[in-house]
Amino acid sequence: MSLLTLGTVAFDSIKTPHGSSGKVVGGAASYIALAASHFAPEQHVVSVVGGDFPQAFLDLLESRGAGLKGLTMVSDGASFHWAGSYHNDMVGRDTLATDLNVLVGWEPNVCPEGAQADFVMLGNLDPAVQLAVLDQMSSPKLVVLDTMNFWMDVALENLKTIISRVDVLTVNDEEARQLTGEHFLPRAARAIHAMGPQTVVIKKGEHGALMFQGGHTFFAPAYPLEEVVDPTGAGDTFAGGFVGYLCARYKEAGEVTWDHMKQAVTMGSVMASFTCEAFGTAKLQSLTMNEVRDRWSEYTTLTECGPMVWP
Amino acid sequence: MSLLTLGTVAFDSIKTPHGSSGKVVGGAASYIALAASHFAPEQHVVSVVGGDFPQAFLDLLESRGAGLKGLTMVSDGASFHWAGSYHNDMVGRDTLATDLNVLVGWEPNVCPEGAQADFVMLGNLDPAVQLAVLDQMSSPKLVVLDTMNFWMDVALENLKTIISRVDVLTVNDEEARQLTGEHFLPRAARAIHAMGPQTVVIKKGEHGALMFQGGHTFFAPAYPLEEVVDPTGAGDTFAGGFVGYLCARYKEAGEVTWDHMKQAVTMGSVMASFTCEAFGTAKLQSLTMNEVRDRWSEYTTLTECGPMVWP
Repeated sequence: MSLLTLGTVAFDSIKTPHGSSGKVVGGAASYIALAASHFAPEQHVVSVVGGDFPQAFLDLLESRGAGLKGLTMVSDGASFHWAGSYHNDMVGRDTLATDLNVLVGWEPNVCPEGAQADFVMLGNLDPAVQLAVLDQMSSPKLVVLDTMNFWMDVALENLKTIISRVDVLTVNDEEARQLTGEHFLPRAARAIHAMGPQTVVIKKGEHGALMFQGGHTFFAPAYPLEEVVDPTGAGDTFAGGFVGYLCARYKEAGEVTWDHMKQAVTMGSVMASFTCEAFGTAKLQSLTMNEVRDRWSEYTTLTECGPMVWP
Repeated sequence: MSLLTLGTVAFDSIKTPHGSSGKVVGGAASYIALAASHFAPEQHVVSVVGGDFPQAFLDLLESRGAGLKGLTMVSDGASFHWAGSYHNDMVGRDTLATDLNVLVGWEPNVCPEGAQADFVMLGNLDPAVQLAVLDQMSSPKLVVLDTMNFWMDVALENLKTIISRVDVLTVNDEEARQLTGEHFLPRAARAIHAMGPQTVVIKKGEHGALMFQGGHTFFAPAYPLEEVVDPTGAGDTFAGGFVGYLCARYKEAGEVTWDHMKQAVTMGSVMASFTCEAFGTAKLQSLTMNEVRDRWSEYTTLTECGPMVWP
């Protein structure tokens, strides 16, 4: 079982009402690969970095089983850089800078081993780039797509094309509403099913995640943190935990069932909670499987209420 | 086992982007008593209405086991009336009118049987009125308090006094933040524990409810509705389902445990979902126990994901 992930490997500069990160490693593929590494031992990352990117982080990814043959290195270029500032609620944020740098004109290259990957995680990027990667895949068993409202505004046709070709779409609640014109999420999910994806995961940040498939609905709460230090990358981490767990179950069971999907959403939620506890990928870099197991055990008690006694 | 409920029995006029209710029966005690009636066969309602209030609704309350000896009837007065208009998200709303009418100067009277009630539900009202009712109670086993941000603005000292005397406080997330100055809900709950209540229920509307007690946390999602017709009274209905279920369990088990509390929060969430399906109390008035059981069965599958398999 192997997982191929497309996404940025990049720098973030994050301000919150409580502190500043300085320039730290971020990017969707960084979060996804680190989160998935606890479950999917063989990974391939498709991305692009500049000569300014720290080799130490690339070494870390490789040590976690992420092959980097699909990582384009532009020695005389600068890595993608995002800067943003969170509001007091730690949800709303203002973008201060989006320096595309080496992303401009980048054409993704999937290596031969990567093209054989069983699972594909298309992290948030231009739908044209997501399509270019999917076109290079041999015959993946499951394709998960993440996107955001920006692409709905500027690249809706390409976005609809890639959506029609994936098994699972992950978006947040406002994006689901924008994409479908439906306010209530069960209806929005049905409209997205009609676009192609059998499974729709609607992320609601601190309010958890809803998943829809074939008339079934599942809800995973967010782990209630004492404090959110930095939510950047939580959605990517969620996706990494989700698809990584599916890889692990597929390896053992030879299929992806609705039960596996439900467990994967809870695992995504648990993994995302860790990312929020520190700036950037700091917490994910040091996270151990024992910490994951402990939090998951605590997490599952959140919604267990025992058998109802009816009057 | 009996339940005494304090709250308004009143009129609402509700506008939404999809329709208008006209003048319909509402008020916290109406929702609470109807929701609780499925679990608590003996109730007492403490409230006040004017001569304009429909006898048919009072008859309905009595037919559901709600004693009305504590209901003051001001024949030449007009009932409390609230008018509001919901935004497109069916969450935000503007108040168009608040006609206090018979609420002005009303002094609540608890009848002798009501004073012996085992459980007390203090619905949202002036904290001075809530205190006046609690002072008339003999020795209730459990007191639940609901309130809102308005009383934090205009009657904070009385509010703090009543909060210090109750077992359970139910507020929404923004109210919990305003009351405590803590943004993150686990911290807000701890601050409320320090004010008195052992159990804190934080309602998040469409995002479910969190409950905190003695270091334990429980989360109940909201039932994902296809469409919200009118959320007015959902919080009161939640409270009614919650405290009603606790009454039923107390009758059978002779105590209120954390497990009972957890089941009660899920029951509150299930009951609240029905209220949102129609204007005012319309759905609650016709609701059958079979509908409650069916929805609860479906509801519990929302968060059940089966045993995790670790890689």
